[in-house]
Amino acid sequence: MRLKFSKMHGLGNDFMVIDGVRQTVSLDTDRIRQLGNRHFGIGFDQLLLVESPHAENNDFRYRIFNNDGSEVEQCGNGARCFAKFVCDQKLTNKKAIRVETAKGVIIPEYLGQNQAVVDMGVPRFRPVDIPFVAEGEAITYPLDIAGYSCDISVVSMGNPHAVQVVDSVDTAPVQQLGALIETHHRFPEKVNAGFMQIVSRQEIRLRVFERGAGETLACGTGACAAVVAGIRRGLLDAKVLVHTRGGDLQIEWHGEGQAVRMTGPAMTVFQGEIEV
Amino acid sequence: MRLKFSKMHGLGNDFMVIDGVRQTVSLDTDRIRQLGNRHFGIGFDQLLLVESPHAENNDFRYRIFNNDGSEVEQCGNGARCFAKFVCDQKLTNKKAIRVETAKGVIIPEYLGQNQAVVDMGVPRFRPVDIPFVAEGEAITYPLDIAGYSCDISVVSMGNPHAVQVVDSVDTAPVQQLGALIETHHRFPEKVNAGFMQIVSRQEIRLRVFERGAGETLACGTGACAAVVAGIRRGLLDAKVLVHTRGGDLQIEWHGEGQAVRMTGPAMTVFQGEIEV
Repeated sequence: MRLKFSKMHGLGNDFMVIDGVRQTVSLDTDRIRQLGNRHFGIGFDQLLLVESPHAENNDFRYRIFNNDGSEVEQCGNGARCFAKFVCDQKLTNKKAIRVETAKGVIIPEYLGQNQAVVDMGVPRFRPVDIPFVAEGEAITYPLDIAGYSCDISVVSMGNPHAVQVVDSVDTAPVQQLGALIETHHRFPEKVNAGFMQIVSRQEIRLRVFERGAGETLACGTGACAAVVAGIRRGLLDAKVLVHTRGGDLQIEWHGEGQAVRMTGPAMTVFQGEIEV
Repeated sequence: MRLKFSKMHGLGNDFMVIDGVRQTVSLDTDRIRQLGNRHFGIGFDQLLLVESPHAENNDFRYRIFNNDGSEVEQCGNGARCFAKFVCDQKLTNKKAIRVETAKGVIIPEYLGQNQAVVDMGVPRFRPVDIPFVAEGEAITYPLDIAGYSCDISVVSMGNPHAVQVVDSVDTAPVQQLGALIETHHRFPEKVNAGFMQIVSRQEIRLRVFERGAGETLACGTGACAAVVAGIRRGLLDAKVLVHTRGGDLQIEWHGEGQAVRMTGPAMTVFQGEIEV
């Protein structure tokens, strides 16, 4: 079977995107792993599979697979690429697109000119939601790591985040500390560790050590978690520009109970056809 | 400009292959580097550019660029993919194809069924040809590394190789020793370090620490150098099956002054189109 696909990226987080609406797609775990291999296959961080929705009032269903073949719930960079893909491929002419994901319906919007905005959902802060072992809820928690203590904020954006403020992301020991926080016993399902440098009330620099992946070029949910944590700590305004190593994101959040909006780039690299 | 390309690999050594005969191709160093990036571009070890020949009695000219944009002379895995590409794309209907490279004319041949054979040229052994600092020529030389001495054979396959026999490639300290040999002061232009385990007179297992790249899945010239060194040491017959981490190669050499022939796989992964 010959399969058409697009290769895309959002801030260097890269995707194989497949139209499963007009093509019949049947890929098992082994095949996804082969396709994801950067030397023997196409190579990607995640495979995005666009399908017809289950519910009539939605526009699409959207599934995400890591390059090890496992299915994941959420990917902010992927959602922006998804939005550009369905518009460019003329699978829809809507602006705001209702999409079923494993974590519920999201509504990304393609703004044109390789920019998309994604409703990233309402952040949650209760320790049980993360999950995080703590007595009661707080804005920051002291966390003991390797003999010293740092102040972290915990945020769930569908996935767990532990964010700390650092003087400079250039000198922060992201690799060493990140690995220790990721696997800290107070995070029973592990955690993404964010290191945020406050540039101004509207601007931060961010590095994220991702759960199971190590430091990445840009983590969409990590940017949301960092800005939300900074707002809750009184350090940031409602609209913040986030500089990551892969590029910039704009994050907007208007407080407790509100969804986070993330605006950023979605780029098409090439079109491909592969025999599967 | 919209450019068609194929993504191919030989034993996991992967290539973007461009038909520059029927397409006008103009790529500078920066653009090659972008294309070679595995997250923001297509991703490859080398870019193979197929062009019309300069001399009338040749069939093609073939240029090879690393993913850092630098042009290189020789790539055995690439030559096999080149041969399959020009046959599959119907750029020629010859079996043995005369190709101009930066190191002279090579004559790869596509055998069908994803196998190609390449004439890898005549190996050279004089220290000055490697270059290698030694007084006189020998089959093996003791080389002092990190306090102990190992016996190496030196071979030029257009690029320099230092090959040693090990009891087992599984336990050989390829990373540590490879880095020390690569940059050893007796190799003024550095060297590729090969570690060969003799299975029988017709079969070896091989790992290669490549100059400037570290250990790779499979090094075509490294396989040639290892077999030639083994034959000169009286350990191997003229036809040898070489197991590398990326797959198998068949190497054939009939002694001093003869060219080495390498047979192995050439795989097409997908077809692509990119705006450049």
